[in-house]
Amino acid sequence: MPDTTATDHVLDAYLEPRREERLERLKAFLRIPSISALPQHAPDVRRAAEWLADEMRAAGIQNVEVSETSGHPMVYGDWLHAAGAPTVVVYGHYDVQPVDPLDEWHTEPFEPVVDGHRLIGRGAADDKGQIHAHVSAAAALLATRDSLPVNVKYVFEGEEESGSAHLDAWLTEHRDRLDADAAIISDTGFFEGNVPAITLSLRGMTYAQIDVRLAGGDLHSGSYGGAIGNPAFAIAQIIAALKGPDGRIRIPGFYDDVREPTQAEREAIAALPFDEETFRADTGVPGLVGESGYTTLERKSIRPTLDVNGIWGGFQGHGQKTIIPAEAHAKISMRLVADQEPEDVFAKLKAFVDEIAPPGVEVTVRLLGTGRPSQTPLDHPHVGAASRALERVFGQSPLYINSGGSIPVAASFQRILGLPVVLLGFTQPNDLAHAPNEWFDLHNYEAAIRTMAATFDEIASLDED
Amino acid sequence: MPDTTATDHVLDAYLEPRREERLERLKAFLRIPSISALPQHAPDVRRAAEWLADEMRAAGIQNVEVSETSGHPMVYGDWLHAAGAPTVVVYGHYDVQPVDPLDEWHTEPFEPVVDGHRLIGRGAADDKGQIHAHVSAAAALLATRDSLPVNVKYVFEGEEESGSAHLDAWLTEHRDRLDADAAIISDTGFFEGNVPAITLSLRGMTYAQIDVRLAGGDLHSGSYGGAIGNPAFAIAQIIAALKGPDGRIRIPGFYDDVREPTQAEREAIAALPFDEETFRADTGVPGLVGESGYTTLERKSIRPTLDVNGIWGGFQGHGQKTIIPAEAHAKISMRLVADQEPEDVFAKLKAFVDEIAPPGVEVTVRLLGTGRPSQTPLDHPHVGAASRALERVFGQSPLYINSGGSIPVAASFQRILGLPVVLLGFTQPNDLAHAPNEWFDLHNYEAAIRTMAATFDEIASLDED
Repeated sequence: MPDTTATDHVLDAYLEPRREERLERLKAFLRIPSISALPQHAPDVRRAAEWLADEMRAAGIQNVEVSETSGHPMVYGDWLHAAGAPTVVVYGHYDVQPVDPLDEWHTEPFEPVVDGHRLIGRGAADDKGQIHAHVSAAAALLATRDSLPVNVKYVFEGEEESGSAHLDAWLTEHRDRLDADAAIISDTGFFEGNVPAITLSLRGMTYAQIDVRLAGGDLHSGSYGGAIGNPAFAIAQIIAALKGPDGRIRIPGFYDDVREPTQAEREAIAALPFDEETFRADTGVPGLVGESGYTTLERKSIRPTLDVNGIWGGFQGHGQKTIIPAEAHAKISMRLVADQEPEDVFAKLKAFVDEIAPPGVEVTVRLLGTGRPSQTPLDHPHVGAASRALERVFGQSPLYINSGGSIPVAASFQRILGLPVVLLGFTQPNDLAHAPNEWFDLHNYEAAIRTMAATFDEIASLDED
Repeated sequence: MPDTTATDHVLDAYLEPRREERLERLKAFLRIPSISALPQHAPDVRRAAEWLADEMRAAGIQNVEVSETSGHPMVYGDWLHAAGAPTVVVYGHYDVQPVDPLDEWHTEPFEPVVDGHRLIGRGAADDKGQIHAHVSAAAALLATRDSLPVNVKYVFEGEEESGSAHLDAWLTEHRDRLDADAAIISDTGFFEGNVPAITLSLRGMTYAQIDVRLAGGDLHSGSYGGAIGNPAFAIAQIIAALKGPDGRIRIPGFYDDVREPTQAEREAIAALPFDEETFRADTGVPGLVGESGYTTLERKSIRPTLDVNGIWGGFQGHGQKTIIPAEAHAKISMRLVADQEPEDVFAKLKAFVDEIAPPGVEVTVRLLGTGRPSQTPLDHPHVGAASRALERVFGQSPLYINSGGSIPVAASFQRILGLPVVLLGFTQPNDLAHAPNEWFDLHNYEAAIRTMAATFDEIASLDED
């Protein structure tokens, strides 16, 4: 195991005098309006890719290329001279969210401004600041040691904010080239305040629509009511059958592939700073409800769910209209956890709805979208390596987060490349990513550089143990 | 009992030579565009009232007056010299529906045209043709006998097509003056083709809205899903609990006041010309479903129902939006039968919803509207009188209809005046009332005059038996 304290001193000696210069580079990166969702910004997205590729080359990263896809390009680069050491894939994205509503920005979104310790601008936190920290870590390590402690393959995407439509195909195409031992994804943040955190899991998704049809048009409830079906009633019956009063989803086989949390994982969740009443009051809901036997934090992170995202049919205006609606519809989404497969869950939903569909109406179920869940065990060695790196830099051990949301990219790296994924991100929970006045804490930007370097050292030392 | 055959000959001898003259009078009545729902037609509504009052006076009806309300006027008249004979209230309305879509009319809506046996024009069937038949019957009887066989009080409304907002108040105000033995309402029609019919019952209504609220705005289903309530799911749970798979409404006490049909009433329904498969195919529904133990015709006429008229909440667009809706809503209407009270049914609905409302959301139930059911027993003497009159004029006994719809006027006469109601109408099922090209069969117009006169004779003879 290397003398990490000594290593850090050397790195710091390199990094400290170059803070201003580095910040100016990052600000130049943020000035490129690489909004991937807006076609008119396609040239800006490409310009950001070229800028990033140049920055990587300047850092000493090798084999850098702007790699074409059917959409915006990927930026790839590597450094593969750590013979015998592990290989790590690092992922981030250089595209950004749109900026509207523009009038709610206090500064220009693409003219970054430093206010105290905050760097304000679109992409500062999500995700240009984080990938620039990775490139800066490589630059500092290569400048001070002429090598990296591990082999690293950098994969920077240009479509994360517009659906990652071409990522899976690109990963599949470059699967051999991306052979590695683990993936580090830096596109997440902390749980609370400035306490470092590692995200262990993300939920997946099966999103479906249920359509119930009766007739070609609405029918008069006086003339027909009582003798024919009612799509709005039928869809209510179907939905109500999907989940019990105990919060358990009643689709047969739904829980078959759910990985139950270990005792250590439940303890890590219980250790998170979280007050249920504060959460309830902040959310504005009258009460907290969910699956029996699990805490609120568990329910919204490591447990699968079923929600109705929308429901509609018939008359929605003021007053009375005495119709039997011709049709009714509902959007149903299920958040999934490892090792549920979205297509399998959809097949189970469809089979169950077909089984319980009431007579007198026609019911169809269709799949609108999927996303795979991802989970990295708390006791995975690479999680331990990142954890020790965070402790060295931040002076405290990280919290372990199980996110209730979905980042399909994580599942793609797990599924397509077969890699364990460590979600190592540095933004604060109130970073306003996707909103006006997005910001990144400059202390964390600097800490991220040191943590990434330290994580490489820790991963290298795993094999030495 | 009078010699009805001889009586009819005298009446016919008076009526036959005056067909053309009578038709011209009716056409003059139809030319007045008395659309009660459109404020710009208020002077026309009054003009129709004055025209009708003059026509009644010309017929020999006494004490005729245009009686003011807070809306359009009522037209009242009577003839009360049949000492010792029963008293009958006759109801109809002289206002009409709007005429749009105007471009679907083949003739001018307010320029009546005779095409074969059809008189085409707005109000021909609904309801000017029918009330003009009443006035013509009185004219013929008074011209040929110098008296009516019973005492008659004519009540003609000017707001039926715009909600009868002031009818109940007027009936209440004139309750003493309207003292009678029965009411004849002529604002309905036949069941099939040109077979005469008497409508025995109309369903009432309780119309309610259920509102479910969670928070001030939609919430992200990834961040919150599983830990908080879902209004769209909750409203589905509530609705699904309102009715069982056997089609029985599960609101406690809902059936307490439902009058069960007699064997004779069920047999009369079974005798109606009705083919379930033809009905299903015409309606376009995949199948017929309803309350166990009742036929399709019973389900849609003499049994109470519960329908969802509309449901909505959350995302209704294309694709996916991963929200938990802030709120969800449903319109619920229940068709009622005698002797259910709409307000009582609403109270039972509200109590039940309050009881079953799931935790984690706020649920409110509010009343949007009510209408009382009405029913006249099949064996009521006045039903028998009208039946015999129809048989004399049409040469066949009438069908007995239980209408699934609601005509609140019928309930008003039952409730406010305490009168049995005979719904004696003469239009054919495809008369296009409320639609373009409304028509009334001139044979039926003439037959209606004779039937009304014969009905008075039959009612008079009830007391003589």
